Amino acid sequence: MPETLVLPSASDFHIHLRQDDLMNMVVPRIAEGGVSLCYVMVDKPNKIEPNLKPPITSTKQALDYKAQLEKLEPNVTFLMSLYLSPDLTPEEIRKAKANGIIGVKSYPRGVTTNSDSGIESYTVYYPVFKVMEEVGMILNLHGELPSDLENDVCVMNAEEKFLIHLKKLHNDFPKLKIVLEHATTKAAIETVKSLGDTVGCTITIHHLQLIVDDWAGQCHNFCKPVAKFPHDRKALRHPRFFLGTDSAPHPAHLKECAQACAGVFTTPLTLPYLATIFESFNALHMLKLFACENGKKFYDVKEKEDKCREIKLIKETWSVPNSYSFDDRQEAKIGIVIPFWAGKTLTWKIDSNQ
Amino acid sequence: MPETLVLPSASDFHIHLRQDDLMNMVVPRIAEGGVSLCYVMVDKPNKIEPNLKPPITSTKQALDYKAQLEKLEPNVTFLMSLYLSPDLTPEEIRKAKANGIIGVKSYPRGVTTNSDSGIESYTVYYPVFKVMEEVGMILNLHGELPSDLENDVCVMNAEEKFLIHLKKLHNDFPKLKIVLEHATTKAAIETVKSLGDTVGCTITIHHLQLIVDDWAGQCHNFCKPVAKFPHDRKALRHPRFFLGTDSAPHPAHLKECAQACAGVFTTPLTLPYLATIFESFNALHMLKLFACENGKKFYDVKEKEDKCREIKLIKETWSVPNSYSFDDRQEAKIGIVIPFWAGKTLTWKIDSNQ
Repeated sequence: MPETLVLPSASDFHIHLRQDDLMNMVVPRIAEGGVSLCYVMVDKPNKIEPNLKPPITSTKQALDYKAQLEKLEPNVTFLMSLYLSPDLTPEEIRKAKANGIIGVKSYPRGVTTNSDSGIESYTVYYPVFKVMEEVGMILNLHGELPSDLENDVCVMNAEEKFLIHLKKLHNDFPKLKIVLEHATTKAAIETVKSLGDTVGCTITIHHLQLIVDDWAGQCHNFCKPVAKFPHDRKALRHPRFFLGTDSAPHPAHLKECAQACAGVFTTPLTLPYLATIFESFNALHMLKLFACENGKKFYDVKEKEDKCREIKLIKETWSVPNSYSFDDRQEAKIGIVIPFWAGKTLTWKIDSNQ
Repeated sequence: MPETLVLPSASDFHIHLRQDDLMNMVVPRIAEGGVSLCYVMVDKPNKIEPNLKPPITSTKQALDYKAQLEKLEPNVTFLMSLYLSPDLTPEEIRKAKANGIIGVKSYPRGVTTNSDSGIESYTVYYPVFKVMEEVGMILNLHGELPSDLENDVCVMNAEEKFLIHLKKLHNDFPKLKIVLEHATTKAAIETVKSLGDTVGCTITIHHLQLIVDDWAGQCHNFCKPVAKFPHDRKALRHPRFFLGTDSAPHPAHLKECAQACAGVFTTPLTLPYLATIFESFNALHMLKLFACENGKKFYDVKEKEDKCREIKLIKETWSVPNSYSFDDRQEAKIGIVIPFWAGKTLTWKIDSNQ
């Protein structure tokens, strides 16, 4: 009899599902990874990241995108977010809430003028945050300062140096639920823990495993925020928090090149990765809380019963596929995406006979 | 009249010249970069680095390699090193010294058994170091601990955590000249400064320019030791030390791939890179000391007068070539190497009408 582990299907509270060709490949693989609920990110694109174009800043856009996702995969619950920009109004927040949108994603903008904070002030958004607090919407923070050589800010300390802004936001809006997304440092974990029940953080699969050495010259492990020191990884391996994979597929040729796109692709193997990694630090008993329960509790969301299912994981040694192919119509060819840990060994597999 | 800068040809106290096809491409480009003296590294190969195979551990091997280099480029002075291994004897050190070999390169070996130091003990080499001190040979240290998650050692702190070993070696052999190669941290600079005249360090071109952000996803800026924090870069921009480029060419396909080789290729443009970078932090007046004088003084070496020449740099805006090609006979094709800052703008050029 193989060793087995039975869990409810998992929730991924930070996922990039792309558009067009990549979306067509990724969305059907959500369920394959043992996930039945996703909180969908709609970030602004930057110069090398093919995030959504245009970013989703209105209720209508978010609902249109949700409809596309549901058409591709009716068995997954898609929770939607908006992208924070100065155009977002308190009225739009109320409308979004009324239409089931659950949060707003903030990505700090650099400032060109001198500033003590290193980022654009959040005070311009305070009327929006006030209404979010009132109606019960979540604020999702990408918690990094933009790099700034004069002030010794770089990818290795950008998160730690952001934490002062998290503390201030929490202080000014103590009832606003805030998620520090994809936390990567001991400092972040300790700060979030200190701020009480309205502040949480997501942890990715890859940050539970990687340190800085693993993305040094290894483009498929390169993501933002970057993985950091061994002591940071140790601090992340803590069950209070919840899964947000930040899974972000890129075509292989945009990774294996002079300037790689940031992002790690984990969606097709969410629970097998997690079970393998949790087992490696003797925390398999915490997997259910981390992947299935804590996030829904923090977000206060419920899945429809027909979507949540039972996942049976079997202890079995097998390999991560070397790549996933997709129909790249723009390039008129078959594209490939290299998943996290391509070719490496997993020790848990989802039972395909369920 | 263009602005000009006249210097003696430079000395590079840490360079990788490779073998076979790559050597044929690289060696003729030493002079192109304004360099007339090189201290040649002969490191042990590792699993992804095509350094010399076999490593050069005897006087005879070093002299054979030197003869190959001189045949390709009679106008450059090649100073040779040996690779430190337990096979190296005090007798071989005396023989090497008598044959003009000037130093021994040490690369720390990881230990598999428990060890406080994280590296193999240096005491096994003490009889060798004693003779080196006596005859006046240089010890060249790759100053990094091997990464070790249990002890929080990773590529970002591997150099700082090595410094205790540098201090101990200096303490035990106060007259032995020791060079901490390719220093990358403020901590290293401060330690070296504190240890007096028998301890120096080389600084590469790329570490004068890069920080950790620049190799995040950018394989052509990935090297070991990795570039670190902005405050570290600031500390490196100090004229007491001397140039050792650690220039290390790799075929492009071994950089733009899932696991990139570590190394940055700067040899063809040594002085144009340096003049451009020194000017950016208002230190052009220190370039001569850094690139032409300090190293030879520390090493106590003189060039033959017919090899050292005058280099005229002209202030002119031009671009780093996108690649350098070489005859890759092993792959039966034309290979390419991507240089540091490919396609980027330089503001100084060596006068080709000299």
